[in-house]
Amino acid sequence: MDIRSYLSGYADGEGCFCVSINKSERHKFGWEIRPSFSVSQNSDRAQVLEMLQKYFGCGTIRPDRSDKTLKYEVRSVDELVERIIPHFEETPLLSSKQHDFELFAEICQLMYQGSHHEMEGFKRILDLAFEMNPSGIRKYAKEEIKL
Amino acid sequence: MDIRSYLSGYADGEGCFCVSINKSERHKFGWEIRPSFSVSQNSDRAQVLEMLQKYFGCGTIRPDRSDKTLKYEVRSVDELVERIIPHFEETPLLSSKQHDFELFAEICQLMYQGSHHEMEGFKRILDLAFEMNPSGIRKYAKEEIKL
Repeated sequence: MDIRSYLSGYADGEGCFCVSINKSERHKFGWEIRPSFSVSQNSDRAQVLEMLQKYFGCGTIRPDRSDKTLKYEVRSVDELVERIIPHFEETPLLSSKQHDFELFAEICQLMYQGSHHEMEGFKRILDLAFEMNPSGIRKYAKEEIKL
Repeated sequence: MDIRSYLSGYADGEGCFCVSINKSERHKFGWEIRPSFSVSQNSDRAQVLEMLQKYFGCGTIRPDRSDKTLKYEVRSVDELVERIIPHFEETPLLSSKQHDFELFAEICQLMYQGSHHEMEGFKRILDLAFEMNPSGIRKYAKEEIKL
């Protein structure tokens, strides 16, 4: 048993690399970009979520809105870049979710370097974010994000 | 990367060890017991299902009723006992789903030996099946299965 491969397999099934974009007056261009890595599970078997938290040494486990599931989540860009992304670079996903991961990793690296504080970097991040999870639901269409 | 651990991790998230019980006049005691191992996935990323099929050398991949997902499934008791169960004995699930697997494995072994053709074995299998997936939905309550 190789725990790293196991956790990558689990994340390939149940994990999500997401970048949400929300209106925010507190943020420089009026929009907040928030990357997160999360893994959900029925609350009757939280074992693997606890294992992920221990293995990565970061992130929180809390009930999801639906209340029937628990969610392990990492939102800190520093933790994403320093702990989560290196793992999935070493032990990659074997499904097409890997493509989302690669876009996600690029976005996180740009934010880690502070690129989102300048218009050019901010736009680059938006472009990458809109390439991700094309089947997912986005709160705002790209055209709605006026800069 | 250890592919066996990866596939166990994936199955821990997305897999199901199920034993369905259905009325059937063709079967000895009026009921059919049907074990299956299945793994579902959005049809836009079938890669890991194809990997499971290749790795186990058995099973089918087909659209699920909902049409939005694909399902990898193994129903043959011989294949379950000879290919699926040995894998999960060697590379076990790390969540409480492992408990379902152990009951599932015992049921499959009993059926492999033909125990379901005698009343005592048949009842033993039913008892084990009703211990599984207590949060799942069963078509028939145990009391409805008159023997």
